[in-house]
Amino acid sequence: MEIRTEVKQMKACAPFVASMSAESRNHALERIACRLKEYEQEIFEENRKDLLAAEEAGIAASVIKRLKFDAGKLGDVFKGLRQLQTLPDPVGKITLRRELDEDLILERVTCPIGVIGVIFEARPDALVQISALCIKSGNCAVLKGGKETANTNRILFRVIHDSLVECGFPEKSLLQAELHNEIDELLECDDCVDLLIPRGSNRFVRYIMDNTRIPVMGHSDGLCHIYVDADADLKKVLPVIVDAKTQYTAACNAVETLLVNRSCAPAFLPAISEELKKNHVRIRGTKEVMELLPESGWAEETAEEDFREYLDLIVSVKLVADVDEAIDHINRNGSHHTDAILTENPETAKRFMNLVDSAGVYWNCSTRFADGFRYGFGAEVGISTGKLHARGPVGLEGLVTYKYRLCGNGQIVGDYAAGKREFHFRDLL
Amino acid sequence: MEIRTEVKQMKACAPFVASMSAESRNHALERIACRLKEYEQEIFEENRKDLLAAEEAGIAASVIKRLKFDAGKLGDVFKGLRQLQTLPDPVGKITLRRELDEDLILERVTCPIGVIGVIFEARPDALVQISALCIKSGNCAVLKGGKETANTNRILFRVIHDSLVECGFPEKSLLQAELHNEIDELLECDDCVDLLIPRGSNRFVRYIMDNTRIPVMGHSDGLCHIYVDADADLKKVLPVIVDAKTQYTAACNAVETLLVNRSCAPAFLPAISEELKKNHVRIRGTKEVMELLPESGWAEETAEEDFREYLDLIVSVKLVADVDEAIDHINRNGSHHTDAILTENPETAKRFMNLVDSAGVYWNCSTRFADGFRYGFGAEVGISTGKLHARGPVGLEGLVTYKYRLCGNGQIVGDYAAGKREFHFRDLL
Repeated sequence: MEIRTEVKQMKACAPFVASMSAESRNHALERIACRLKEYEQEIFEENRKDLLAAEEAGIAASVIKRLKFDAGKLGDVFKGLRQLQTLPDPVGKITLRRELDEDLILERVTCPIGVIGVIFEARPDALVQISALCIKSGNCAVLKGGKETANTNRILFRVIHDSLVECGFPEKSLLQAELHNEIDELLECDDCVDLLIPRGSNRFVRYIMDNTRIPVMGHSDGLCHIYVDADADLKKVLPVIVDAKTQYTAACNAVETLLVNRSCAPAFLPAISEELKKNHVRIRGTKEVMELLPESGWAEETAEEDFREYLDLIVSVKLVADVDEAIDHINRNGSHHTDAILTENPETAKRFMNLVDSAGVYWNCSTRFADGFRYGFGAEVGISTGKLHARGPVGLEGLVTYKYRLCGNGQIVGDYAAGKREFHFRDLL
Repeated sequence: MEIRTEVKQMKACAPFVASMSAESRNHALERIACRLKEYEQEIFEENRKDLLAAEEAGIAASVIKRLKFDAGKLGDVFKGLRQLQTLPDPVGKITLRRELDEDLILERVTCPIGVIGVIFEARPDALVQISALCIKSGNCAVLKGGKETANTNRILFRVIHDSLVECGFPEKSLLQAELHNEIDELLECDDCVDLLIPRGSNRFVRYIMDNTRIPVMGHSDGLCHIYVDADADLKKVLPVIVDAKTQYTAACNAVETLLVNRSCAPAFLPAISEELKKNHVRIRGTKEVMELLPESGWAEETAEEDFREYLDLIVSVKLVADVDEAIDHINRNGSHHTDAILTENPETAKRFMNLVDSAGVYWNCSTRFADGFRYGFGAEVGISTGKLHARGPVGLEGLVTYKYRLCGNGQIVGDYAAGKREFHFRDLL
């Protein structure tokens, strides 16, 4: 069946999925966990096919590691599913209850967004985690995973989908898109799909953002900064920078540019370059920076204003006069993802955190903390660098919206316009 | 100066505007009120020029009424400015405070969105109201008003802008775009403008949504429904329908389609058609509806499935079998703005309010209540039919976003990955 036809059917059943009880949604998560356990051998078997194909295709070992779905990964998946059941229900929360007038009660209540399209990288565990978040939040989801794990995705989807139907969810609560051209079909469904969450390379996410009228939540770039202030504690600084750069270089929250206060550069630069060299991190510094570095092959000069997201063992280094120049540089050149200041001066830290216009503003810790699990959200569908709806790591709260309920007894606006009646706003919460 | 250059400068000063204290923002609102009073004669003079030009251009009296800016309108503006000062500050609210680990505190704090572009109809009072909402919420705004009030807009903008500067706001806190082609320039500024709020005709708003990559908040259509249930109290029903249709026909929350339960149609239709006739409202009914109406010239038959936003004294009428058919019709044909059920049966009402996928779901009251003032928000920048960020009438809360602040003492992710340290999520709020 054409994906558009299926998504239309999903849209029609979304309100019913949205109104299912928290109990049945949690029960479905439990059922999914049991069924995955039941089918684990078949799942591992399908995954072996994907891994074999990947090896034959000569895919890099680092990538293959992400394709692998073994007992360990399945164990994490179970943990995630169980934890998700214990999290409070994001749906049906009354966030406003106001008496507008006698017998005229306004309520604002959280509800699922509806139909969410998720396009994610080749990671089987991502498929389970994303489906689980959508189920917990009462949303319908169209899932398109990476083709490198097609076999694993297919069986995981079947197990999850069948578990949902067993628990009384409509057939069309969850859809799988398998063909790449279905992505473009999906982008056209702006009358049925309420939100798109693309995960993957910058170029891919940018392509999605540029080719649909559906709202997109996510981030294309992750150009994160660390500003080393004049009042920084150098002992504290070195491990934080190394962690932010090397703990997982491919992550969007890894640091890409170091801004160093000119006054402490002479003392700081040789130390950090030594530390970075030990960790195989190459420096791309401005002329001024290079002059402060000992002769070395692992540092090279860059043109001014050439700052990139490397996702690799490379870091740009630039000197600034003060915190304000750092703030200005970050707001102009950054991706509004996560930026940190390292200083022992609370006033300077406060200024930085107030004026840097990013989803995450950190003081004396690694940018790598920008993550739904580390924030205690239980899980995340992604990290948003947009400012509307959800910003930063997005968990369950980012998957719900709200509606206003107004209950009356025949009230008409004309009476209020004519002054026959008056509103007396009284909050009941 | 080119608008793009000015907006770039605005973007650069936005963080400073965002960090101004609530006191200075409220003080600015007070100053604006005083200055407007001071300049009222000049303002009325400029407005007379606009009115004269409008009359010469043969603009409809109904429209000219909206262009008029007299002592009465100014009085309302003062009321609005004073009320806005008394509203709680939407900025700087801590909505999450969590200890991730010893000495590692995560906070989520509300902050202004940044740079907001507002394109609004020819209503001078709208210019003041929108500027005031942006100032109260710590945002910078680019304002483009209707050309029919160019003279009034110019002096109002000058008074407001100068009051801001007197109160220590940056020169570029507020910008006015006057030329129509500047709208298209503004749509290109997706690197500087964080949000666009267009107000005006469906076609205009749709044009904006289709021609920019900047997030757009607002609504193009307002196709609102009233479903008259089998258990409706006919005495209660008639005034509500008349109010929803006639109290202000040009409003987006006016009812456009009546769905009537077949079982009560024979009793109900003649009564409502009589009532609508008295109020000069023409009925466009399906064949089935027409057969139940007495011979009359003010009702005409329509093709099935032809439902429109009339914004006029016309209403579509269709019969449905039950609440579920009504819900399905609304979700398929509506604009997800505001839809009401009229019934004395709480179970039916509950089902309707749960399953109708609209920003406002009403029980036994007029759809015309969908409005920021009537919800007690003090004011509104518009009504959103989108589901993300803000839904329904949008007041101050819709003009802020949030950022995450993480304060540490040298923590690195590597220690947690290696199991040397563990998160203990403890909420401090």
